[in-house]
Amino acid sequence: MHVRASGRRPTLRRAILLLCLLFAAASAGLGLGGSGDRSGEARADSSDTARDVVFAIHGGAGGLTRESLPPELEEQYRAALRQALEAGYAVIQRGDEATDAVKAAVVTMEDNPLFNAGKGAVFTTDAKHELDASIMDGDTLDTGAVTGVEHIKNPIQLADTVRTDSRHMLFAGYGAELFAMNRGFKLVTQDYFFTDNRWRSLLAAKAGRSEFNFGLGTVGAVALDGESDLAAGTSTGGLTNKPTGRIGDSPVIGAGTYANNDTVAVSATGTGEFFIRQVVAHDISALIDYAGMSVRRAAETAIDKVGDLGGDGGVIALGRRGQLAMPFNTTSMFRGWVTRDGQFVVKIFGDE
Amino acid sequence: MHVRASGRRPTLRRAILLLCLLFAAASAGLGLGGSGDRSGEARADSSDTARDVVFAIHGGAGGLTRESLPPELEEQYRAALRQALEAGYAVIQRGDEATDAVKAAVVTMEDNPLFNAGKGAVFTTDAKHELDASIMDGDTLDTGAVTGVEHIKNPIQLADTVRTDSRHMLFAGYGAELFAMNRGFKLVTQDYFFTDNRWRSLLAAKAGRSEFNFGLGTVGAVALDGESDLAAGTSTGGLTNKPTGRIGDSPVIGAGTYANNDTVAVSATGTGEFFIRQVVAHDISALIDYAGMSVRRAAETAIDKVGDLGGDGGVIALGRRGQLAMPFNTTSMFRGWVTRDGQFVVKIFGDE
Repeated sequence: MHVRASGRRPTLRRAILLLCLLFAAASAGLGLGGSGDRSGEARADSSDTARDVVFAIHGGAGGLTRESLPPELEEQYRAALRQALEAGYAVIQRGDEATDAVKAAVVTMEDNPLFNAGKGAVFTTDAKHELDASIMDGDTLDTGAVTGVEHIKNPIQLADTVRTDSRHMLFAGYGAELFAMNRGFKLVTQDYFFTDNRWRSLLAAKAGRSEFNFGLGTVGAVALDGESDLAAGTSTGGLTNKPTGRIGDSPVIGAGTYANNDTVAVSATGTGEFFIRQVVAHDISALIDYAGMSVRRAAETAIDKVGDLGGDGGVIALGRRGQLAMPFNTTSMFRGWVTRDGQFVVKIFGDE
Repeated sequence: MHVRASGRRPTLRRAILLLCLLFAAASAGLGLGGSGDRSGEARADSSDTARDVVFAIHGGAGGLTRESLPPELEEQYRAALRQALEAGYAVIQRGDEATDAVKAAVVTMEDNPLFNAGKGAVFTTDAKHELDASIMDGDTLDTGAVTGVEHIKNPIQLADTVRTDSRHMLFAGYGAELFAMNRGFKLVTQDYFFTDNRWRSLLAAKAGRSEFNFGLGTVGAVALDGESDLAAGTSTGGLTNKPTGRIGDSPVIGAGTYANNDTVAVSATGTGEFFIRQVVAHDISALIDYAGMSVRRAAETAIDKVGDLGGDGGVIALGRRGQLAMPFNTTSMFRGWVTRDGQFVVKIFGDE
């Protein structure tokens, strides 16, 4: 079956549905059917590295293969990743802060239904959307995060407002939305987040076809600005069919997001429970800081530790000299980066 | 004014009221009135160390002095700390797991209205109780945590059930309580948590007398069992007058709680926002693991970093050979430990 990449909605919907079914099948085939059956033998299957990088993103690690992703849909993803990179790079180029670049890129991915964040977020088991996001400034170590928000169009913007406009660091659910209203955010209703493919994913999960489908489509960004300040941010809808109130690693500073000018900026994606247990993002920073590892070796070590516990996923890690590492132990991770002189790279599969 | 330590409620209530007023006054005097005015010059003012420890607890770091704590109330606190130590030590002595010892001790402090956890938890700005807890097994790195629960008598027990009986690690609010109901927990109504002194603390905070009164009375425990397994747990009501939905470090694995047999078990108490930013509990583990520091030096370094950002509080940190460190940069931390051969030590002030 071929899907034309036209802008017409029925075609897009069919494409998304196809992706959903393919992913459900891929998940089942990859043995992602439960927490108990993980072999623990996963290692970082792939690890891009690059130099002189000022901005990088991911759109989630997962089980996609060249065979399972229709070419037209692949092009849509590549275009969306490029758009996010351009948004972040524009901020860096005009001399604004790393946190602003992170925010700008993550917003484009939250607004794009292809990704599991903002519009297009997955459904909880109670057929709702509960969104998580966090951001950290590597210069000040200021952080902001929200979890379980249901009516915020761009959770990364709310997380950043927590960072800049609150003495607190982390807000959940109704309280996060009260804070948002007090800060002038316009709330959206749950139908804003609806997409047909996520709805079908939920039904598939409930039918037992992909019980513990992990965060394909979690989005994140890391940035290095003209002041040599680092920042990192992550946004997600979590897991399809997740229990109400379940929190993964994305809003947890140290697990899904961490930035420190002394070491590295990190955004993670994958089976969040394992990233929480390994405190992955901070562990990468600590391996650089205390064990003297390179960004690459620290990031690969952390992903290997996640694999040792049986977890899947990847990170993007950017050091202050522009050294980028992107290890993941899945077959795919939507990802891309921009170098200081404006070279754009976008990748999806592990073998490219 | 003298307060008799009889069991009669009016006397106890008066004692608690007195403590509340004294603490409000102490807080104001210590300049805890806002996040903007912290000088950042706090260092670890005190750091107990001990050897051959198998169990240790804290009941919160704070601004208490010998002058501000009535002797009768001091005795009540010392008795409560002793009771918690006995509960934990009994579990270790009968050969059960470190996580069970942590749970047993934390439950006694959650049930005791003297502490800011379970019964006696502080009020949010919306005059509610929102409780957080977490626990981690240093052997398996399994974790469980809950945040913003409102109807759970012993949040540490729910956190532990998340650890043992869920593929997820962290649940918030309503979803955490749905999980609890599904696992047979009996829910309590909010009035269960009510204490007169916390109510008056809320009114005092709203009157501007202690705006950002930090977590005096957060409770935590670290344990080393007969299998040489470590565990750590923390439980809290958070900050008096905290905004609805605000989450501190206590339920955040890596910030308020962390345990790893390779390094250390840690439970933290203090201004949680700073402990989140510094990923304190995991940082102590990383300093031991990657920088080769002793438990004591790692714990003191982490508390100094919190102080550098302007945060207040302390940690209890227990290594696998029974080496205990308890640094804090406040004038007091309710704390105690038991050695392998049954020696009990209970302390409150920094200068004892």
